[in-house]
Amino acid sequence: MPRATLELVAARAGVSRQTVSNVLNSPQLVAQETADRVREAIEALDYRPHRAARQLRTRRSHVLGLRMPPVADGINGAVLDRFLHAVTEQAQERGYRILLYAAPDVDELEIAQYDELLETADLDGFVLSSTRFGDTRTTWLTEREVPFVTFGRPWGSLAAHPWVDVDGAAGVRAATEHLLALGHRRIALLGWPDDDAVGADRRRGWVEAMTAAGWTGDQLTGMQLLQLDSVEVAVGATRHLLAEVDPTAIVAVSDSLALGASVALRTVDDPPAVVGFDDTPVAAAVDLSSVAQPLDEAAEHVVSLLLSRLDGDGTQPVEQHRLLVPRLVVRGSSRPPAR
Amino acid sequence: MPRATLELVAARAGVSRQTVSNVLNSPQLVAQETADRVREAIEALDYRPHRAARQLRTRRSHVLGLRMPPVADGINGAVLDRFLHAVTEQAQERGYRILLYAAPDVDELEIAQYDELLETADLDGFVLSSTRFGDTRTTWLTEREVPFVTFGRPWGSLAAHPWVDVDGAAGVRAATEHLLALGHRRIALLGWPDDDAVGADRRRGWVEAMTAAGWTGDQLTGMQLLQLDSVEVAVGATRHLLAEVDPTAIVAVSDSLALGASVALRTVDDPPAVVGFDDTPVAAAVDLSSVAQPLDEAAEHVVSLLLSRLDGDGTQPVEQHRLLVPRLVVRGSSRPPAR
Repeated sequence: MPRATLELVAARAGVSRQTVSNVLNSPQLVAQETADRVREAIEALDYRPHRAARQLRTRRSHVLGLRMPPVADGINGAVLDRFLHAVTEQAQERGYRILLYAAPDVDELEIAQYDELLETADLDGFVLSSTRFGDTRTTWLTEREVPFVTFGRPWGSLAAHPWVDVDGAAGVRAATEHLLALGHRRIALLGWPDDDAVGADRRRGWVEAMTAAGWTGDQLTGMQLLQLDSVEVAVGATRHLLAEVDPTAIVAVSDSLALGASVALRTVDDPPAVVGFDDTPVAAAVDLSSVAQPLDEAAEHVVSLLLSRLDGDGTQPVEQHRLLVPRLVVRGSSRPPAR
Repeated sequence: MPRATLELVAARAGVSRQTVSNVLNSPQLVAQETADRVREAIEALDYRPHRAARQLRTRRSHVLGLRMPPVADGINGAVLDRFLHAVTEQAQERGYRILLYAAPDVDELEIAQYDELLETADLDGFVLSSTRFGDTRTTWLTEREVPFVTFGRPWGSLAAHPWVDVDGAAGVRAATEHLLALGHRRIALLGWPDDDAVGADRRRGWVEAMTAAGWTGDQLTGMQLLQLDSVEVAVGATRHLLAEVDPTAIVAVSDSLALGASVALRTVDDPPAVVGFDDTPVAAAVDLSSVAQPLDEAAEHVVSLLLSRLDGDGTQPVEQHRLLVPRLVVRGSSRPPAR
């Protein structure tokens, strides 16, 4: 059975679109017999009232749904908090408010929140963040024709939807080239496992810069440790790299990992240089170079793409996207090689 | 003229409360002549429809308004971000969502947001944070009978409303007593100017503990610097304290100030101990002792007080409040005196 649309309901009941709309929103305007026929068609086609309400209302709620991300270690989480700030401000400037919901990093649980929000709240669309491989959230929303934009690209997914993302590979490539320009050669990587799409993308920037500098894939395999995003884990991983690889510099795909490296290096003479990712307040506090995401710009594009989709008639291209280039912030941890 | 209420409108129009409600929400149920009389009364009394809608509706929106605080230096702002997380989760567990709005730290601009939200959005109440001396936000909301709870007590205000706060004086007193127990005597204070109510409260904890340890008010005057909450300012202030006071320990009323002290002390032999306030991720990263606010507990009480007010009939005491005790987190910066 094709997905129920307003047109199908109207056709089956033998009435106009406006009459279906009236049955849902102003039933007192519709004759009883006509209303009964429309309601039968709605039931037979399993047409969902909340979708109907969204498609039919003439006045928007001007409210957008956004997930409050789970609190992690307070370091990398600062990035999504800053994104939340920026989206709230950008949306407000354009007459929209942000409605928050909490959900853990599990697609099914976040989708359950969408379902409840669409039933109980009056939302014009969603802003999603932290897209990942095999993301089922975007498929769910697309099938239900719910407008949304993701901060994060559709990793390996065929789902076509508007998105905004930051080029992590370019950021880590710039960090690695910066260390190469300082005279470093043996630059190790603290990364995340490759099943994390964002981590795999950032790691690629290191591989590309190091390959261009003459390292082979086999050599690079031994110069990286891919682990969980934890300060404590990174302390141990850094000690391991010091013993096995003897790097003069370390590139980390997050500030949590870079902080762990800095902690491990506190007791080391002539410590290696360190560069992190996300330019968090912690990086500034411990004088750590880091790659900064342009979060204000990202929020501006996210809101613009979503509002242009809301203003559109459904015929505009849904694959609109923006890939933004991050910026390296150089601080004291960008030491030249001691030897 | 007394503030318009539903009762006054009903009395003036010579109809029941329910009829006024019907005119506002289901006008098709009311005879034209009656409706005209009610509308005249509404206009004559300047009775605001959005307040009427709130008082009259049988079904709540289950949405609470909360300000997204302006981004400061990313250090102390982390506390309000964590509070926002906790409130969102606590509210959601009880069936409520959080609608965000942005406003700078200026009462008039935040009140303008309330006004717009009450006109355009469907809110059950507000959660306010960062109360201050002469707070006009609470007066504005109280006059309009809008349910709200503040995170922060009504400093020097006669406004009676439910509030939750953390005992800053107790936190700084505990930090100072902890340093005294380590053997410190000459403990300096990095504070905020006393026109900041929160800063004055925290400073009081240091004064009380130091007075109990035998210092006089005159002596303490020379052992404190009250300045803006900025890392850079605190670097300079700490250098000034080192030169003028020669402290063996420094208590700071925020982690931004404590970080500034730590930066200034990096090049000092036998550096003084330092304790900050708010236990931010930055404090953990630089191994800084700090006073932790019980934010999850605070959020739980804020949501509970607000929902009990929404569930009440208007006769329950509005001066309900909770003053929570913070907890000192001891880290490496709690050094004993070197001399």
